[in-house]
Amino acid sequence: MKPLGPIPAGFCARDGVLAIDGVKVTDIIAQSGGQTPLFVYSSALLRQRVAALREAFPAQLGLHYAMKANPFGPLLRLMAGLVDGFDIASGGELGMALRAGLDPSLISFAGPGKRDMELQAAIMQGVTLNLESEGEAARALAIGERLGKAPRLAIRVNPDFDLKGSGMKMGGGAKPFGVDAERVPALARQVVEAGAEWRGFHIYAGSQALDAEAVVDTQAQTIALAARLADEAGVGLPHCNLGGGLGIPYFPGDKPLDLARVGEALAQQLAHLPDVLQETHFCMELGRYLVGEAGVYLTRIVDRKLSHGEVFLVTDGGMHHQLAASGNFGTVVRRNYPVAIASHFEAEATEEASVVGCLCTPLDKLADKGYFPRADVGDVVAVFCAGAYGASASPSAFLGQGAAQEVLL
Amino acid sequence: MKPLGPIPAGFCARDGVLAIDGVKVTDIIAQSGGQTPLFVYSSALLRQRVAALREAFPAQLGLHYAMKANPFGPLLRLMAGLVDGFDIASGGELGMALRAGLDPSLISFAGPGKRDMELQAAIMQGVTLNLESEGEAARALAIGERLGKAPRLAIRVNPDFDLKGSGMKMGGGAKPFGVDAERVPALARQVVEAGAEWRGFHIYAGSQALDAEAVVDTQAQTIALAARLADEAGVGLPHCNLGGGLGIPYFPGDKPLDLARVGEALAQQLAHLPDVLQETHFCMELGRYLVGEAGVYLTRIVDRKLSHGEVFLVTDGGMHHQLAASGNFGTVVRRNYPVAIASHFEAEATEEASVVGCLCTPLDKLADKGYFPRADVGDVVAVFCAGAYGASASPSAFLGQGAAQEVLL
Repeated sequence: MKPLGPIPAGFCARDGVLAIDGVKVTDIIAQSGGQTPLFVYSSALLRQRVAALREAFPAQLGLHYAMKANPFGPLLRLMAGLVDGFDIASGGELGMALRAGLDPSLISFAGPGKRDMELQAAIMQGVTLNLESEGEAARALAIGERLGKAPRLAIRVNPDFDLKGSGMKMGGGAKPFGVDAERVPALARQVVEAGAEWRGFHIYAGSQALDAEAVVDTQAQTIALAARLADEAGVGLPHCNLGGGLGIPYFPGDKPLDLARVGEALAQQLAHLPDVLQETHFCMELGRYLVGEAGVYLTRIVDRKLSHGEVFLVTDGGMHHQLAASGNFGTVVRRNYPVAIASHFEAEATEEASVVGCLCTPLDKLADKGYFPRADVGDVVAVFCAGAYGASASPSAFLGQGAAQEVLL
Repeated sequence: MKPLGPIPAGFCARDGVLAIDGVKVTDIIAQSGGQTPLFVYSSALLRQRVAALREAFPAQLGLHYAMKANPFGPLLRLMAGLVDGFDIASGGELGMALRAGLDPSLISFAGPGKRDMELQAAIMQGVTLNLESEGEAARALAIGERLGKAPRLAIRVNPDFDLKGSGMKMGGGAKPFGVDAERVPALARQVVEAGAEWRGFHIYAGSQALDAEAVVDTQAQTIALAARLADEAGVGLPHCNLGGGLGIPYFPGDKPLDLARVGEALAQQLAHLPDVLQETHFCMELGRYLVGEAGVYLTRIVDRKLSHGEVFLVTDGGMHHQLAASGNFGTVVRRNYPVAIASHFEAEATEEASVVGCLCTPLDKLADKGYFPRADVGDVVAVFCAGAYGASASPSAFLGQGAAQEVLL
């Protein structure tokens, strides 16, 4: 038997069936045309998460949503009323943001391989570009000149430190992201002298950390680095995006981040800023932490089979929608996500079973030897923590399957 | 410096630029509208590979294409004139096969999570179902009865052995695929007695093996198992799909499979079949081995940057089209695929550089610290071995990027 990840707070049962925002998942599926697999996102949980962040964080801190985590249109429109800005990572995401009615002046665009047409679209819309290199700066300035429009430019800094214990390190040493810290002041002056609208720094040291002290340390280092670079550059610092880094529990033993601790430390830091940052507006850019735990992936059992004494619950979903849960997305050792038999959510676990997807590959595993209530053909399986890097980060065309439906409650 | 995988045979340079089927990739890109990234599949290499298999294998062996490896329509139509049958893995693939004009009577359908609607579509079209369980058999028979059409049924056998050294083990122990060998005879009798059109066995022990002896051993075991089960079942064995298993070299040190050795051994085995298999038609089902090396992924360098002394070549492609090359598809330790600077294909390598994609994640790496000729913005990078499990097996919607173009030369 292998343990399952922890089910996030905020879910309960009705008549023994998993309920999301108070509605049984069997009813949600029926109301969505009866088709599975289905991603369900909870407005209530999204609102609660933003409220918790507002409560924990100092009031002057801006809260941005990194839409790479989940670009579902209705979710973007909901977030537009909750957060202060958006981060995009491609021209495609810019299009989705505009179609969702987001205000381009509240959008910033980071990404190491921006094409000229993407830079042009962003400049025309008044989107802030987080410059990843001197070469990109030159291209952005040239395009701005050609368009007769001053580009809004920030510099993404490749910090000399990383976020300890983070799932993905984005700083510390040679990286494809941002400009090495020592070259930032010269580039900042160049950007300002070229007549761009100077927006400041974007400093992203890592993501998916559950250790509050690591986040606190990184934020202190980030603010110190911003102060040093702003001082050297001598051009002021209107904005500073502190990045993200707040993790959510996915795996057995993972504990939720101590958000209060992070918020208190940040309040202290922002209350004692050096002179050069007194006028700076700070924000954080969160993706997974905002939306990850608000999403559930529902898939139906198509077959229940025995092989050499082991039970396999074969579902109509799989890794084509849940690449990360299958263990094929940046993980070295596969561990189980939180997975449950949604249609028997309160029943006692009585047997060991593996939940697999419908793809004809041994990689397509949603839960390996978990301990579950008895489940049969027609029962619904829930994979939790499916709100971020699920639908859009999985190979939905694989084996001709196609995308899953999505619904925002 | 880290080694790069071996570039497959069949590629050359023209005017110093990588050529595919004699055409420079820069011209191929121009003829395809100038857009990168672009998947290019070579008809010449596809034909050569099939010809090599026909040459090596006994004439009576049928050759099937497992379209999960690459379902691109023009490629399917080309393959229709080259192979004897097709294997599909979903109702979606059935639709693609029919749109490509494939003959449904030459199609078999394997996959552990077939939905009722998929079974129904297959039965109506006269597609052979490789049954994955007793439950699926019961569903297929019931649907056939309802439709008034005898389903064409084979049984996928979960063998008691696996393919040694294979990249993906599909047999040996508890598996979600097929029916455990000891339960196969009873199920075969039941299927025949129910009035289905009995098609035989599908026995798939593993894939992506480069060791000819391992393939030979597995095929001998497969034939012996088929004989034993057919004997026990007493219902004859019209067809036996021996699976695939032939690997292609991806990584440094990988050597091509000794196809002649596999073919000779198979000829011997088919020449000395036990009585119960004298009337059996044998086939192999190949995906990756048929198309993998015939495909090249072309992506353009958008930025060349230095970070802490290391060179990063940032491209307009990435893991959203090349999940496996990025090391995020069933690999534990990331190794480099064969990657080259296509626009300086014959130039001497002079510098260490990492080729990264445009996605804003450290997972998006196409070549880690390879040794390349100097390359700049605008140069074209080629990722080889991109013909199988590339375009359709990658998360193309990730970060709003979208699918790459594909072209068959």
